Amino acid sequence: MHAITIREAGEPDVLEWREVSAPEPGPGEVAVDVTAAGVNRADLAQRQGSYPPPEGASELLGLECSGTVVESGPGVTGWRPGDRVCALLSGGGYAERVVVPATQLLPVPPGVDQVDAAGLPEVACTVWSNIVHEAGLEPEQLLLVHGGSGGIGTCAIQLGRALGAKVVATAGSEDGLRLCEELGASPAVDYREGDFVTEVKRLGGANVILDNMGGSYLDRNLSALATDGHLAVIGMQGGRKAELDLGKMLVKRLRISTLGLRGRPLEGPHGKAGIVHDVRQWVWPMIERGEVRPVVWHRLPMREAARAHELMEAGGVHGKILLTTDRAE
Amino acid sequence: MHAITIREAGEPDVLEWREVSAPEPGPGEVAVDVTAAGVNRADLAQRQGSYPPPEGASELLGLECSGTVVESGPGVTGWRPGDRVCALLSGGGYAERVVVPATQLLPVPPGVDQVDAAGLPEVACTVWSNIVHEAGLEPEQLLLVHGGSGGIGTCAIQLGRALGAKVVATAGSEDGLRLCEELGASPAVDYREGDFVTEVKRLGGANVILDNMGGSYLDRNLSALATDGHLAVIGMQGGRKAELDLGKMLVKRLRISTLGLRGRPLEGPHGKAGIVHDVRQWVWPMIERGEVRPVVWHRLPMREAARAHELMEAGGVHGKILLTTDRAE
Repeated sequence: MHAITIREAGEPDVLEWREVSAPEPGPGEVAVDVTAAGVNRADLAQRQGSYPPPEGASELLGLECSGTVVESGPGVTGWRPGDRVCALLSGGGYAERVVVPATQLLPVPPGVDQVDAAGLPEVACTVWSNIVHEAGLEPEQLLLVHGGSGGIGTCAIQLGRALGAKVVATAGSEDGLRLCEELGASPAVDYREGDFVTEVKRLGGANVILDNMGGSYLDRNLSALATDGHLAVIGMQGGRKAELDLGKMLVKRLRISTLGLRGRPLEGPHGKAGIVHDVRQWVWPMIERGEVRPVVWHRLPMREAARAHELMEAGGVHGKILLTTDRAE
Repeated sequence: MHAITIREAGEPDVLEWREVSAPEPGPGEVAVDVTAAGVNRADLAQRQGSYPPPEGASELLGLECSGTVVESGPGVTGWRPGDRVCALLSGGGYAERVVVPATQLLPVPPGVDQVDAAGLPEVACTVWSNIVHEAGLEPEQLLLVHGGSGGIGTCAIQLGRALGAKVVATAGSEDGLRLCEELGASPAVDYREGDFVTEVKRLGGANVILDNMGGSYLDRNLSALATDGHLAVIGMQGGRKAELDLGKMLVKRLRISTLGLRGRPLEGPHGKAGIVHDVRQWVWPMIERGEVRPVVWHRLPMREAARAHELMEAGGVHGKILLTTDRAE
């Protein structure tokens, strides 16, 4: 098979479409012929050498994909060759075939295009595990979503609304702000000009914040939280370090969590299998009802992965970038 | 009745034993004649003017007491005059009589002295709500307790052990270290000389840290946590601000929480009633079985509250300081 390989840590042009040996499913695993793979910000860090794959994971890029089941390893039940699926991966999605634990497979939801489904697993699992599992968002509460027009953000806005929460989002372009509002954010705040703290405080403060900025937003996020609020940090696009005012936290009884998906174990209370199970149970029906839809910005042939990384690094991405194999045609 | 009043914000000598009007129980409340009140670090901050009582709470000092029920307001069931009780208070314990919501009352556990019981509610509720409710400590996990020889610390060590966890504690004196070890900490680390990060890492890292230091320990606490670990900050004796490294948190999927008890609502998912209920259900049997006992350092007559504050400010407190009324004799 062919896959995108990393010649050496570096700029996008280190990505090469090369022939590699196809993976074989082990016990509990399923082999999937890939239709499309989602591009995630973590992929850029892995390409640059700063985010190595967890132990036992594929060395190849790609944390989510869609495709067709071709073969199952020993002990797998519930999936058969020909099933149309999408999957949460620990790596390996930028390839014509990937092997994945059966517990990380999801059916392609009715009404969703087979290519578009590639952009669902990572964002849905990230958003659900953070805002519901971890932060306990409830109906009528206020969710603040930073990076609202990105892949994670577009899902988080819709999911928050489907849960019955109010959603405020930040974005940095006219198109991005319009997209956030179309998806249900009210208001969408222009971070270049507006002050999200004032906007959110005017509404009583945020109960949950989903943040991709990290350091540069830390203190403002704490200011924007309501009593008993929860800051879920999932990215550090604004730097990894900042001064923390514990006094501000104690007065409002705040929590900060930093829960990535990729390095989690398969099983156990923090495991991927449980998250995928819950996403199938709670989010997939929202997708079937049309309350949550994949927002896809660009499709590119997988061999042009370097171009996809350049686009994501240039910023202004609205929704997901997907990489398609020949099977998508 | 008499109570300790605060003449003006300031040093311990602003505390005066004066005649004040006795409080009357409203709906759902119970009046308790106080036998003893526990001294907590929050009392020092309130005396200094930096920790005002929450809305609706007594202006008087005192977050926990023991005593005898004298009268119930409308709608109270389950408590009768003469019942020996202890109580979690939002204030008012430094007095001969206090009024408290019935849901914050606990029976004096069998085998516990009526005076000593005054030191149980605040520490038991603080420790339980932080290390179990919030941080989810489990048997076989590792709990790190800072300030192990203090009022909260002595309870946390015993409670952690009673839950089946391993416990490491820090303290700053020979007596304090010996006390921590007697209560079940292994090892007790001398923070003046030893390095708790190394000790805890040697044991695989802490799953939960109960911290009273705040800023000065923040980065070392994050270093000492295991993957999926939880830092519960309940005090800021080492300052309120410090640099936070979100990168260190994301790699290990860490959480920080800052959950004080006092300002919480009575009801609801974060409310005091639920915490007191769970403490009665889970911690009181541990006390009855002798697995957790109140550790009392000093008893002083309540009129000498100023002296008690001086002792606590001088440091080196091992267990609780209790203030007794004439009823204790």
